[in-house]
Amino acid sequence: MLQTAFDFCVTHTEGRARRGVMKTAHGEVETPAFMPVGTQGAVKGLTHRDLEALGAQILLSNTYHLYLRPGDDLVARRGGLHRFIGWPKPILTDSGGYQVFSLAARRTITEEGVRFRSHLDGSSHLLTPEKATDIQAQLGSDIAMVLDECLAHPAAADVARQSMARTLRWAERARARMLALREAPVAGVTIANPGQAQFGIVQGSVFPDLREESAGGTVAVGFEAYAIGGLSVGEPPDVMYDIVGATTPRLPQGRPRYLMGAGTPEDLVEAVARGVDLFDCVLPTRNARNGQLFTSEGRINIKNARYAEDDRPADPGCGCYTCRTFSRAYLRHLFVTGELNAATLNTLHNLNFYLDTLRGIREAIAFGRFESFRLAFHQRLSRRSHDS
Amino acid sequence: MLQTAFDFCVTHTEGRARRGVMKTAHGEVETPAFMPVGTQGAVKGLTHRDLEALGAQILLSNTYHLYLRPGDDLVARRGGLHRFIGWPKPILTDSGGYQVFSLAARRTITEEGVRFRSHLDGSSHLLTPEKATDIQAQLGSDIAMVLDECLAHPAAADVARQSMARTLRWAERARARMLALREAPVAGVTIANPGQAQFGIVQGSVFPDLREESAGGTVAVGFEAYAIGGLSVGEPPDVMYDIVGATTPRLPQGRPRYLMGAGTPEDLVEAVARGVDLFDCVLPTRNARNGQLFTSEGRINIKNARYAEDDRPADPGCGCYTCRTFSRAYLRHLFVTGELNAATLNTLHNLNFYLDTLRGIREAIAFGRFESFRLAFHQRLSRRSHDS
Repeated sequence: MLQTAFDFCVTHTEGRARRGVMKTAHGEVETPAFMPVGTQGAVKGLTHRDLEALGAQILLSNTYHLYLRPGDDLVARRGGLHRFIGWPKPILTDSGGYQVFSLAARRTITEEGVRFRSHLDGSSHLLTPEKATDIQAQLGSDIAMVLDECLAHPAAADVARQSMARTLRWAERARARMLALREAPVAGVTIANPGQAQFGIVQGSVFPDLREESAGGTVAVGFEAYAIGGLSVGEPPDVMYDIVGATTPRLPQGRPRYLMGAGTPEDLVEAVARGVDLFDCVLPTRNARNGQLFTSEGRINIKNARYAEDDRPADPGCGCYTCRTFSRAYLRHLFVTGELNAATLNTLHNLNFYLDTLRGIREAIAFGRFESFRLAFHQRLSRRSHDS
Repeated sequence: MLQTAFDFCVTHTEGRARRGVMKTAHGEVETPAFMPVGTQGAVKGLTHRDLEALGAQILLSNTYHLYLRPGDDLVARRGGLHRFIGWPKPILTDSGGYQVFSLAARRTITEEGVRFRSHLDGSSHLLTPEKATDIQAQLGSDIAMVLDECLAHPAAADVARQSMARTLRWAERARARMLALREAPVAGVTIANPGQAQFGIVQGSVFPDLREESAGGTVAVGFEAYAIGGLSVGEPPDVMYDIVGATTPRLPQGRPRYLMGAGTPEDLVEAVARGVDLFDCVLPTRNARNGQLFTSEGRINIKNARYAEDDRPADPGCGCYTCRTFSRAYLRHLFVTGELNAATLNTLHNLNFYLDTLRGIREAIAFGRFESFRLAFHQRLSRRSHDS
């Protein structure tokens, strides 16, 4: 019988905001934490040592992509994802559901699971709650997510109810499979990480009653921790904040809460204020590759002609390698000429901004001044209108 | 009257191979040296700090590209190339001639210079020996190259003679312009680096008599140092080695010799054996982006299916970050999935291989064992046939 290495401890609170330590099979993560997205086992444009130097403590990787290439069997034969990608710290994998549901015309949902066609070669695959659990067991991430149905926004109430109910039934199946894998060897599934944890996911779109039912049902199934899914999909920020604020009290105090796919720096601060501990988002990395930089005074688009002769760093208040070394004029030149380094230097800055924001949040909570941090954070951002 | 900061001192010799120190306005370079190519002011896929960590002491940057984008005027207003790109160490710029001559249908050569159309917007430009000198003065590189005519291989003897003679006349004009710029301010030209040196270029295709005449004429003009151009353009390696071996004795002992655009690791060792001190080549960086890795036992193509489950480092004998951290299986995965990190990690390895080779050469010359280094180097490479 395998036992999860997972544990969580809240060390400080201020209002509903919490600071804590999450323990995984590959080390500890200070929370609230932001997880950079390494879709295919790498954060686009950054080496692992750059990530470590930025203070990243945990990576997110995508089951859908790794399942298709290089395949979870191959990763398992390599000793699991940590060994395969050379990242010894914690890794969380999603279930693959989000990508599969994004395929739209290429997938059909049944009670059994989701049948989809690969975006690479059109081959047909069936992703079930059990299969998503097996794939992640073979990848050997420290935290596996259950397969959930990700609804687009907006969704009608009856559609959202049916979807939420199915996600709950899938959660039960995923958990049963996880417990079976822990109980005894299963043919065809290599357990790459015996200490893997599994998180359940609360759904229910923007409907408070559905969220309440989903939270209750998911907690009743019993996971190592819980995520809030189906937000940051196009609804107004205030709606997201309200749903988050209404959901966290229905999740166990002693377990981390993970707001999936969020968000802007402002979203992170507001979600922490409502009791969230974990985040992932492609914004800092994807926007970096599109030339958008997050700064302490708002976002700037480095391709803008106004920066052609601007000798200041991207963010004068930032201490990252990019800002210590390079001017906006040079960053613009790299972007305009299509140099690979544009992606690297912009990504490095944006991730530093996110990780620094989380460091600031953790420090503030520890010293009981999170509310003043939150106020100053929003004031500073609003002082200058975005140029994007 | 400006004075060049340039100096060169041979510290060790073994046969015709030399070890030395080249002094520039932005610091010293140990020779023989390899200059990574940073076409547009950045080595594709590597940050400057990665380059410094690899031990790169000097960068090459391309005048043609920087002239078109962001423009030498803009670079001069930023304080020169070093400040603009944030690289405080030595920089050599080419004259722009090689790129312009590569434009083929888009350029016409006259005695005055080369008229060409930009590959970016089709705009018409005239590059003369004087203009190439002015642009590089505004870029402020530590070493500027004269504008020469780069012939394709093979070239007929009469064509090569005319071209060599014109290159010689252009060399006189370029030097006269350089001395004028040093003598007194010239309207419209900002001297971004008062200590800039200027190198002449020996041409003459594969014809020993033309090479001899070109060397004599170029040395008679009088530059801080001399390059051998027009090789590594498709001629057999033995022909290149013969031309190099016949040319270096005609260049001053006390000045560095730069073999432009060469070459394979084997080429570098053979050219050093014939008295060459400086190299630049896109092979390690360009091939890295195409998945070809240089190793101590030959080249490997990382995209090859045979590496899909190969847990060994790219080069088991290599101590670079890529080889210390990642398997061939992971490098192949990154390449196959088109991850940006494939370029970064492959480039890092290949440049380390080149810079390590030069480090080995310098050490060997200092200890009087370059000939045994050379023998062992070739034996090791020939032990294993390339898989590419």
